[in-house]
Amino acid sequence: MAHQKYASCVEACNACADACDHCSTACLQEPDIKMMARCIALDIDCAAICRLAAGCMARDSEFAKQVCQLCATVCEACGDECAKHQNPHCQECAQACRRCAEECRRMSAGG
Amino acid sequence: MAHQKYASCVEACNACADACDHCSTACLQEPDIKMMARCIALDIDCAAICRLAAGCMARDSEFAKQVCQLCATVCEACGDECAKHQNPHCQECAQACRRCAEECRRMSAGG
Amino acid sequence: MAHQKYASCVEACNACADACDHCSTACLQEPDIKMMARCIALDIDCAAICRLAAGCMARDSEFAKQVCQLCATVCEACGDECAKHQNPHCQECAQACRRCAEECRRMSAGG
Amino acid sequence: MAHQKYASCVEACNACADACDHCSTACLQEPDIKMMARCIALDIDCAAICRLAAGCMARDSEFAKQVCQLCATVCEACGDECAKHQNPHCQECAQACRRCAEECRRMSAGG
Repeated sequence: MAHQKYASCVEACNACADACDHCSTACLQEPDIKMMARCIALDIDCAAICRLAAGCMARDSEFAKQVCQLCATVCEACGDECAKHQNPHCQECAQACRRCAEECRRMSAGG
Repeated sequence: MAHQKYASCVEACNACADACDHCSTACLQEPDIKMMARCIALDIDCAAICRLAAGCMARDSEFAKQVCQLCATVCEACGDECAKHQNPHCQECAQACRRCAEECRRMSAGG
Repeated sequence: MAHQKYASCVEACNACADACDHCSTACLQEPDIKMMARCIALDIDCAAICRLAAGCMARDSEFAKQVCQLCATVCEACGDECAKHQNPHCQECAQACRRCAEECRRMSAGG
Repeated sequence: MAHQKYASCVEACNACADACDHCSTACLQEPDIKMMARCIALDIDCAAICRLAAGCMARDSEFAKQVCQLCATVCEACGDECAKHQNPHCQECAQACRRCAEECRRMSAGG
């Protein structure tokens, strides 16, 4: 498929969106939710922009690189916040965010 | 991860959304676009509901089953339309839609 | 515009999505977030399906009625949950959800 | 409501998303679709980023300004393309895009 050119970045965006969506729900069940408030807020943002980025790449959009560049910024912030928390869902989300940030930076830098 | 319980359905939804997004763009480059008009319209709908369904499952939403049930209906219609066209992107999209419809029906029927 | 036929329902969906998105953030700043956990989860679902429904109506999608029918169900659940909480953002969100549920039911029932 | 601070920009994003969604469907029914291919592709992108931007502002996201900045760029491109076509849906969409680009630029420049 033509969108294969972005295949690994699309896959990283989908995986990151799923991890963020899962993390937000799991955070809401933690005993100390207050501590997780920024994590939840960033999870919501990050899932939304990752799904947008996956769609833009799959459509080979004129703006795919610019969307991925912003996606990398959001993923990085979300990954940094998640990494502060020891819950497995946060640690897994941090990993997905960092991989996605890296893929998006590479993609937006040149293809 | 807790959302692993829906893992194969989430994966099918992501793959179907990507295939639909790719198909809509590829259809717009076909010599006879007019013939592809309904395919493009269904691709847009199908990509949107597949991404919603993936998110609902990843968040373990109360409405995940109902969203997947509707997603199955949309995927089936999109798959039937795509199957009429011989372009590789349509044939690949038809396959992704059918697999997603099946996963979503199974998921909404019981988990 | 042709999508004027659904104008009041599109408007209600956009307003409800915005109210839900606002409510989820405001809930995260409440002193007792734990009590707001289901409200936040439903806000996320409701915002997402309202934005899908607005898009489907604006595109005059074949599935607009079915999406609005499901949207009404989600709005009703979200409105019922929000109505339990006395915070102004929850009360305003409950109102937006109920208006949207009503518009979506009317739209899906006949046009 | 707290998200009132972005009220006019949120409203412009919602209106632009609806106009783009409507324009993409209407373009697919034009006698010469081929001529509308880029318009359709940009409509899809623009609707998606406008709905993301509306959500980010309503959630008072940390990234609302950056999302609006990118949204302005996409709206401008979509508005320029739509403005080339004399169909009423394209002309109306061009207007919605330009108003949204202006609101998003103002919002991202300072609040």
